[in-house]
Amino acid sequence: MIDLPNIDHNSHLSDVRQAMSDHSIENFLTIDGVSIRWLSSFTGSAGKLLITGSSSHLLTDGRYADQAAREISGTAIELFVGDGKQQKEFIAAQMRSSKTLTLEADRITWGAVEELKKEMDVEVLPSNGLISDLRQVKDPSEIARIQAAASIADSALMQLLPDLGGQPTELEFARALDSAMFDLGAEALSFETICASGPNGAAPHARPSSRVIRARDLVVVDFGAVIDGYHSDMTRTYIVGDADQSSWDMINSVTEAQERGCEMVHPGVKACEVDDACRSHLSDRGLGEYFVHGTGHGVGLEIHEAPWINGKSSEVLEEAQVVTVEPGVYLPGVGGVRVEDTVLITSSGFRRLTAAPKVPIV
Amino acid sequence: MIDLPNIDHNSHLSDVRQAMSDHSIENFLTIDGVSIRWLSSFTGSAGKLLITGSSSHLLTDGRYADQAAREISGTAIELFVGDGKQQKEFIAAQMRSSKTLTLEADRITWGAVEELKKEMDVEVLPSNGLISDLRQVKDPSEIARIQAAASIADSALMQLLPDLGGQPTELEFARALDSAMFDLGAEALSFETICASGPNGAAPHARPSSRVIRARDLVVVDFGAVIDGYHSDMTRTYIVGDADQSSWDMINSVTEAQERGCEMVHPGVKACEVDDACRSHLSDRGLGEYFVHGTGHGVGLEIHEAPWINGKSSEVLEEAQVVTVEPGVYLPGVGGVRVEDTVLITSSGFRRLTAAPKVPIV
Repeated sequence: MIDLPNIDHNSHLSDVRQAMSDHSIENFLTIDGVSIRWLSSFTGSAGKLLITGSSSHLLTDGRYADQAAREISGTAIELFVGDGKQQKEFIAAQMRSSKTLTLEADRITWGAVEELKKEMDVEVLPSNGLISDLRQVKDPSEIARIQAAASIADSALMQLLPDLGGQPTELEFARALDSAMFDLGAEALSFETICASGPNGAAPHARPSSRVIRARDLVVVDFGAVIDGYHSDMTRTYIVGDADQSSWDMINSVTEAQERGCEMVHPGVKACEVDDACRSHLSDRGLGEYFVHGTGHGVGLEIHEAPWINGKSSEVLEEAQVVTVEPGVYLPGVGGVRVEDTVLITSSGFRRLTAAPKVPIV
Repeated sequence: MIDLPNIDHNSHLSDVRQAMSDHSIENFLTIDGVSIRWLSSFTGSAGKLLITGSSSHLLTDGRYADQAAREISGTAIELFVGDGKQQKEFIAAQMRSSKTLTLEADRITWGAVEELKKEMDVEVLPSNGLISDLRQVKDPSEIARIQAAASIADSALMQLLPDLGGQPTELEFARALDSAMFDLGAEALSFETICASGPNGAAPHARPSSRVIRARDLVVVDFGAVIDGYHSDMTRTYIVGDADQSSWDMINSVTEAQERGCEMVHPGVKACEVDDACRSHLSDRGLGEYFVHGTGHGVGLEIHEAPWINGKSSEVLEEAQVVTVEPGVYLPGVGGVRVEDTVLITSSGFRRLTAAPKVPIV
């Protein structure tokens, strides 16, 4: 077991209380598992978290009573156990005379909101991204978890890379990577590991197939590990054996573009400027039209979270955010190249958390 | 690769058109990945499916253009590729003079609904469970996929069971099961495999730990495989070596309760009657208070879907639904027992799709 510093949930709670004050929010209720985990450490699938002016409670049912008590011990959040009706009565009692209940509009279904309105005498108000905005900036304990996950992915890849030349199928190589990450202590995979060879690499989100990886193939490997809920994300593209000049040109151009993107990362830069650094380099190389997705995204309790790095994102990046930089080019019928690191934004620039070498030949 | 009959997506589309007609729905839009897959076979993460009186279209962006064209070929659904703004203009054009757009209230966020209202000149209307209700009854091609997934889980367990007596940790045994399922052709796990031994089994949703499985332990193993998007779900509880009489009593009572529940399954029965068959048997054995969850749920493209089998569900079960029957008892500090099959509702009763023997001793 990796030794990790405790997460300071109480500072997360303070951040939310500050945001509630800034936005004149009387009572805040979230039913989103990620928001709840970030605030309370509770990992069960059925919870509500209520923050009022004077109290903060996790509400769950009998199935999760013991787990919830164990997981939230050490936080300032109190536990209420009851069925759905009892939970609604408890929420009403905690709200006292105030009548407005602010919900995460982007994390609750339309139907759930209508049900709350019908069953409770409250005025529901929408908030967008209140918690996910706060989650963008990571504290040292969260960075330690992402770093641990990234290091596991690095090690797994280094162990397995020599096998890529042994004609495995995409599925076999992906599964071997998965097993290696679990053996190294990953609690889960960040997402279904991508191993896409030859023409299959032309789809940015290819799923591994039974295609045998052959000499001269470009092979895109995109994968990550999870440690205590926190994700890593890394892509490398390899050439098996010798390659055409055009494959070399693609892989070099994307690797350079990724480097340009990383070098642009620092506190105060607009996310779209990072995207532009990658995109303009690929355009200069005549590959701009084949870069069909955004440059990156935040990484944390979710594999894809704010901030978003693409041509339209005017958000300004901040110290202690963790983001991916992952330009790629995709030639239909031919293949694809993507190179990605998970990077931490430091006070002066960036630090790669994923560190596997980018030597493309195996 | 397992040979499976093609899914008849056009009959799914006909079912939705009939439901739209029954509920006087002019235009139906879903952004839910499961609904979209069931209707069109598209598996990408960014799609919209629009059904109007005269047309049905999958809308996606450039990243998924090729994949979408490939996956929906053979269905009556047409493809539109464009960015968010172009998609909204296309929807408006397809709606012609009609102004109401019905959305899945239980599958779309409050925020997404507000955005649609703001950006489009439409009246949005809620529907609840329109597609998930239709998805309850499976056609033969869907049943074949669930059966294939269930058989993989059966085989994996039978291969690995002798190892349970060799003092593996929970994590080691769970991972071995996972690998065996992948080797047998599973494309994914239905959920994170549960292997909970001794006192850990007292939590219905325990995650596997590094606890070594010892003699006299009760061990709950709950897991499943995915084939072409369709899930299986099975739980067995084992006793390692010899056991206390109280453990035997628990395991026999739960196994009997599960049998009672299965025998109650047939077209026309209320779901709560299946729950009651399990619950009353456990109450008769003095274990009723330790059965802290519902008896089962539907299984298909989602691991948990309608119909729900619990004390409050008055839904009437129908032929060709696939559900779990999974009573359990959980003694805090002591351990747990759960026994679960995925069963198909036949014209006259039920057929187990999961078939691993229920001999509890290893």
